Amino acid sequence: MPNVAIILSGCGVYDGTEINEAVLTLLELERNGINYQTFAPDMLQAHTINHAKGEATQETRNVLVESNRITRSETGALEDLDVSKFDALVFVGGFGAAKNLSNFAFDQPHYQAIPQVNEVIQTFHSQNKWIVALCIAPVLLAASLPNIKVTIGNDQEIASLLESKGHTHVECKTDNFVVDVTNQLITTPAYMTGQSIKEVHEGIQATIQHLGTKIS
Amino acid sequence: MPNVAIILSGCGVYDGTEINEAVLTLLELERNGINYQTFAPDMLQAHTINHAKGEATQETRNVLVESNRITRSETGALEDLDVSKFDALVFVGGFGAAKNLSNFAFDQPHYQAIPQVNEVIQTFHSQNKWIVALCIAPVLLAASLPNIKVTIGNDQEIASLLESKGHTHVECKTDNFVVDVTNQLITTPAYMTGQSIKEVHEGIQATIQHLGTKIS
Repeated sequence: MPNVAIILSGCGVYDGTEINEAVLTLLELERNGINYQTFAPDMLQAHTINHAKGEATQETRNVLVESNRITRSETGALEDLDVSKFDALVFVGGFGAAKNLSNFAFDQPHYQAIPQVNEVIQTFHSQNKWIVALCIAPVLLAASLPNIKVTIGNDQEIASLLESKGHTHVECKTDNFVVDVTNQLITTPAYMTGQSIKEVHEGIQATIQHLGTKIS
Repeated sequence: MPNVAIILSGCGVYDGTEINEAVLTLLELERNGINYQTFAPDMLQAHTINHAKGEATQETRNVLVESNRITRSETGALEDLDVSKFDALVFVGGFGAAKNLSNFAFDQPHYQAIPQVNEVIQTFHSQNKWIVALCIAPVLLAASLPNIKVTIGNDQEIASLLESKGHTHVECKTDNFVVDVTNQLITTPAYMTGQSIKEVHEGIQATIQHLGTKIS
């Protein structure tokens, strides 16, 4: 059975992992007969957002601890990810990708992935393994790899930023995905464009099914 | 379009809503063309569990605020639930049902649903509207209604407790559901017996599809 590592970034769209995207990704991996293990960095979140009010709070929360809410305590520390055991890497979206796994939300022109994430991306890539990124998470790949082709949906500002860094941005609808054959990347917009769980599910279903054809 | 109210109880299996069950229920409602709105009580959680370690922490969290993580800020206060606007009621599982929506986790022999939940159940029931409960949430229905037929999977201890209170417990597998035609209740074990997201999804899919035939 193929085996996939998934990186989470907390629990909740505005300061962590987009929850629907995570659950639907795991569902589709299971339905495609793909084993998986989830990982998250053991670090404090950039901040905590009250998701009822949309305001930052004084609370401090840990990315690894909160990610474990989604996975019923099955998420391991990112530092324990042994790339040799996995056939592919998946990044789920949510602001956690832009706030915890990178500083994209705070400094778009000069953003970088955190060192642990940068290293994981480069290691999977150097071993010619497929990498999937949903929603805003393709910006992580664009920070760590040169001249790649990705989608973040139809956001012109982010598309221009990526192009200014030498990447190719392809517009994509929620139920579809973009493949960079050369770099072995699959990206899909999910909630960058999606208006419903059903729509986002359709895109994730198609994406994971395509990943399955590459690693089975 | 039929319209369903869903009650959440936080965000995370050990102190709130079981996240997979919530997301998969909303997905299946959308796929069956059923409108929905989510609600949660505006109250402190019974406690906060560190889901990486399984231990209680000193943090205080609010059930309504945390529930909004699952729904991208779309969950309203339970006190604002206007029963006349809805065709059915759905309770998702997770320990939040047993810790926040009731005291089942702390006093099984004499447990009760909290007054707001008790009132909502009795009002939907008195208006001959269907009620769905997943996982451990059927114990809420058993606290508020007499002589009902439900499943919580195959847990002998809880089944005996329910039977001692005059209810009928029916064993049920993860991919199936139990209908109480007289009281208009549909229950399914979800993670009371389920071993994977795929299995739990199959049960929720069948349950919501059946609900759809009753309210469409």
